[in-house]
This record gives sequence, C-alpha cells and structure tokens, in this order.
Amino acid sequence: MGGDHAPAHEVAGAVRASQALRTEGVEHSLVLVGDPACIERELVRYRPVPDTIAIEPARDVVAMDDDPAAVIRTKPDSSLVRGLELHRTNLVDAFVSAGNTGAVLSAATLLLGRIAGVSRPTIGAFFPTIGNKPCLVLDVGANAEVKPQFLYQFAVMGSLYAELIGGIEKPRVGLLNIGEEATKGTETVRQAYAMLQASTLNFIGNVEGRDIFRGAADVVVCDGFTGNVVLKFAESILPMLKAVLERFSRRNAVTRLAVGLFAPMLRRALADFDYQKYGGVPLLGVRGTVIIGHGKSSSLAIANMILRAWEMHRLRLGEQIERALLQPAPSQNSA
Amino acid sequence: MGGDHAPAHEVAGAVRASQALRTEGVEHSLVLVGDPACIERELVRYRPVPDTIAIEPARDVVAMDDDPAAVIRTKPDSSLVRGLELHRTNLVDAFVSAGNTGAVLSAATLLLGRIAGVSRPTIGAFFPTIGNKPCLVLDVGANAEVKPQFLYQFAVMGSLYAELIGGIEKPRVGLLNIGEEATKGTETVRQAYAMLQASTLNFIGNVEGRDIFRGAADVVVCDGFTGNVVLKFAESILPMLKAVLERFSRRNAVTRLAVGLFAPMLRRALADFDYQKYGGVPLLGVRGTVIIGHGKSSSLAIANMILRAWEMHRLRLGEQIERALLQPAPSQNSA
Repeated sequence: MGGDHAPAHEVAGAVRASQALRTEGVEHSLVLVGDPACIERELVRYRPVPDTIAIEPARDVVAMDDDPAAVIRTKPDSSLVRGLELHRTNLVDAFVSAGNTGAVLSAATLLLGRIAGVSRPTIGAFFPTIGNKPCLVLDVGANAEVKPQFLYQFAVMGSLYAELIGGIEKPRVGLLNIGEEATKGTETVRQAYAMLQASTLNFIGNVEGRDIFRGAADVVVCDGFTGNVVLKFAESILPMLKAVLERFSRRNAVTRLAVGLFAPMLRRALADFDYQKYGGVPLLGVRGTVIIGHGKSSSLAIANMILRAWEMHRLRLGEQIERALLQPAPSQNSA
Repeated sequence: MGGDHAPAHEVAGAVRASQALRTEGVEHSLVLVGDPACIERELVRYRPVPDTIAIEPARDVVAMDDDPAAVIRTKPDSSLVRGLELHRTNLVDAFVSAGNTGAVLSAATLLLGRIAGVSRPTIGAFFPTIGNKPCLVLDVGANAEVKPQFLYQFAVMGSLYAELIGGIEKPRVGLLNIGEEATKGTETVRQAYAMLQASTLNFIGNVEGRDIFRGAADVVVCDGFTGNVVLKFAESILPMLKAVLERFSRRNAVTRLAVGLFAPMLRRALADFDYQKYGGVPLLGVRGTVIIGHGKSSSLAIANMILRAWEMHRLRLGEQIERALLQPAPSQNSA
C-alpha cells in the first residue's frame, strides 16, 4: 500500500507475475497485504482473478516520510509491517515492497534478523553498463558509515547474488576507490582492499567512478554514503539530457525537427538506462527474501520484483550467504 | 612540460592568453618553464613571438605516474617544481599547470604553504548544470578523509571563488548528503551541517547527488572521496552515451542514418558538458594562485587557465579567503 501508485501497480504486477509463474508451471501463491476493499477494486479488473492471489488485511499504510526506525511501533498494522510479519512467521517465503525503503530496511532487519556472520544488511542498486550486464553497486544508502569487514561482507553477498541470480560465473568484484593503487583512499578502504585481496572472491582491485558505466566489474563495493550519492547522481542523467535537448530544440525549426525525430530513438537507445527496468533491488543480509522497489514502480517492475524474489528463494541465496560468511574472514593485515 | 600535449598546447595557450590580455590592455608577462629548445620549437610557429613571453629553463619533467609527495626531492629541476619556486619567490604572481595533479597539490602546499586558517588546501571541479552556471564541487580528491571544519573551510573558499571569480552574488552553498534532513549522513557531515547553518554563508542545507546537474546549488561541499568518485563517474557519461548510440546505430540502416544525422547536434547540445571547456580548477587554500588543468588540456583550456589565474590574482582571492577564515569558525554545536 505504500508505493506511489498503490495498489494499482502492485495488483497489476501480481497478476502479471502469477500468469508468468503459471506459464512456467510453478506452483505458487501471492498474498496482497493491505486494505481489502481497495485491493478488490483493482483485482476485479483482471477477471477471472487468478486463484493463486489472496488478500491479507492491513489497515494502515507507511508513508514515504514516516520515520523508518519507528514504523514497527507506530504502524504495526501497516501493510509493510504485516507483510514482513507473514514472512517472519514463514507464512510466505518472500516479501516485496515499493514502499518506504528505509522503513523496509529497518523493519526487515528488526523482524527477520540478520544472517549469521552479517554485520549490516545492505541494499544494492543495478547500474547499466556499456557491456551486456548491469553492475551491482552496494551499499547505496543503508550504511553511511562502514568498517572494512562490512565492505568485505557486501562483496561476499553481492558476488553470490551476481552469480546465483545474475548467472555470472566468478563475478568480478571491484572496490570503489579514488585510484587504482592499493595505497589509495581512506584507511577503511585500504583495509578492505587487503581483506578482499586475501579472500576467495574474484577481486579485481580498486575501481574508479568511471569504471561503473564501463562495466569493468560485475559487483562494486562501497560505503553507503558514496553509493547513494552516485546512484542519485546517475538517476539525474536522463532528466538532465531531456532538459538539455529540449532547450537545444528551441533554438530554431531545424533543431526542433531534429530533436523531435531523434528523441524517440534516443529514448530507445537509452532504455537500458531506465532504472525501472531492473524492477527492484535485493535487501541482502537479512534472514529472509526481501526486494525493495522504487516508489514509482510500474506494474512490470512489480512483476519482475516478484519473479526475482521467487528466484532468490528457490536458489536459497540466504543459505549460501550464511555458508560463505561462516568461513573465517580474511585478516585485514594478510595482504 | 608535464601535460599530455606539452609543450605544444601550453605554448599555443600562452600565446592565445597573451593576445587576449593585450587586447584588454593588461600589462603582463608570461613565463614558460621547461626545456628551452623544446619550447622554442613551438614558439617559432607564432611569429612574431609576443615580447611578453619569456622562457625559464627546467631540465626535468614530472610524469603522470610520479609519486606526488616525492617530486620536490626527486625532481627539483622539473618544470613543475621550478615554476612553483618562481611563484614562491614572487617572481611570478600565479602558477598554471596541466601536469600531475597530485604533484601540483603536494608541491604547492609544501612550497607555498597554507593560508592562515586553512587546515587543508582543496581542489574543486566545475560540473555543468541545466541552469546557466556551472556548479563548483569541492573537494574532488585532495582530501579523501575530512573533518567538519575542513568541510566548513571548503565552503568558505568555494563561496568566495564563486562570488569573486564566478560573479555569483551570495552563492548558494549546499552540503552533499544522502538526504535532506539535518540528521542524515555521517557524524562528520552532521557536524559540518551545524557549522554551515551557524555561518554567514548562504547555506541552503543538504543537497543530494541529483541536485548537482539540477543546479540546485552554486557550490557543493563534500569529502574528497565522494567528490572524486562522482567527478570520474560524471566524466564517463559522454563516452558511455557515445558507445550506446554507436551500438544502437548498428542495428539497421535507419538507425545508422538517424544517429549519423543527429550525433553532431547531440554533441553541440552537450558541449557544456565537455569538462575541457572549464579549462582548469583552482587549488584553493595555498598561499598563492595556482590552477590545475586536465592532462589533455587543449590550447583553449590552457589560455582560459591563464586568464582565470590572472583574475584570481587581480581580485586577491587568497587575501579574501584569509580574511574570511580569520573570523572564528562557528561552533559545531551551535545549531
């Protein structure tokens, strides 16, 4: 109920995901958590309503500006908290939301708990690249301040995600830094470098800001402050291009015509750079399967989030993370 | 001598700048520091050589991969160190280089010293915006780790630069953060927020990654780690667009034709986003006037750097910074 277009896009996405799962012969059931009347109104548009879709009532809604840390206490009967409760009690295998990101992070961490060996759950984001695969950058805001071992754990979780869900063999893991040399950056980053170097990950060393779009790495690890700034900066590129082209097209009739003809092509060429396409991002490190989508998620994005959550559950990503982090972490001084 | 196209672009830029200064009736002299034979070979292409241009011999050259902290010791007779020595001894009023950025930063700080009240000299960068003025982001790499008072000092120096050199009245100063609220971000950033809030600067509060292109602030203050990552990420946008459009154009004859026709227009529309245009960036906080350009600086960029250095000297930017920082810094707890 907390997404910008809830529950319309959520219901449409669930119907779409259910059809896709049915086509693939996957037994499943989807539970829509929220105001039953509101959800019913949307559901009736998809008659016959798939019998795999159920409704779980929740009276309250977490708003985008609600204090994330407080929602469990202030809005226990919200769709967000109720949905996570269903997951905590194993009534559902995964939880997907296009609501308040911070609130999902906070409530999921408190209700589901952390995977053994995980210091801090993390949220990543997929950046488009000029290669064929997106680049998973993590953390992008869950942890503004990090320790070397957090960065190491982000790398382990991100690498497993890229391998199991992204289908990338031996994902290339890069450490975001301000130079290639091991001596660059902050003390925290230098220590993380040593840990990653000594790990069994496919660590390719430091990467710089320019290497993200270049697709130099499959997984890029950084503190949540830097990651968040770069993510929001990246999300501003398309609106900026649009504004620049619009201004340019106003110069004269020729530029207007050219931009008018070309704009749809540019849009198609840059379709990969539409963050919507990736649907949502996994919350990694909690005991459970949680995907968080943009507030503006389209029904396609919601459907993709549901299908990806199913993949994460099916491939037991959480168990793999736990197993990997049960290994002793490489010493920070071993490189 | 240390730029990628040295001394060709440097000499051409100096001739260009000298002509521009002469046209404006400004008495001046330009000293080219480096291998005299090498410089002469370029200079003769601009006969008659302006009598305002002199040559100061220096046998050595700082390479882009030389250890920045060591060049004073290892390459005392390099054009970089010799040029800064001329400035230190007041034989010249300003120093401009397209060489090794870290080496200029390090050698300038050691040879010229810091302005009273400045904890750390800083290097900023100009980001294009959808508005009419670029946004000065600082620090972009000189200081990977910062304290709250460093961020406050960056803000004071950046604001004075934007006002005196950029001609912006009461520059809007933003603090780069991961959310708008004063409680967001790291402890360092929160303390810097309080200092900026209590200052006499035109502080507009926290800004996010998306606000840079948007032109929400004239000056954006951040640690050099985040600033460096965002700068290099931004510099990768045009190459990325080029690669995406090229791939798109290969799809079929129609897309090839469309991209071929439109590419020059897109280039012109995005001309403002060519970092070359801004010529160079000031090194703020050292006792002197220093501008650092990209290794690939064109002759136009070199000329602009010289003209801007002259402006900085003429308007006594350093003295203004010293005066501003002699005021007691606002308390970190005053907000």
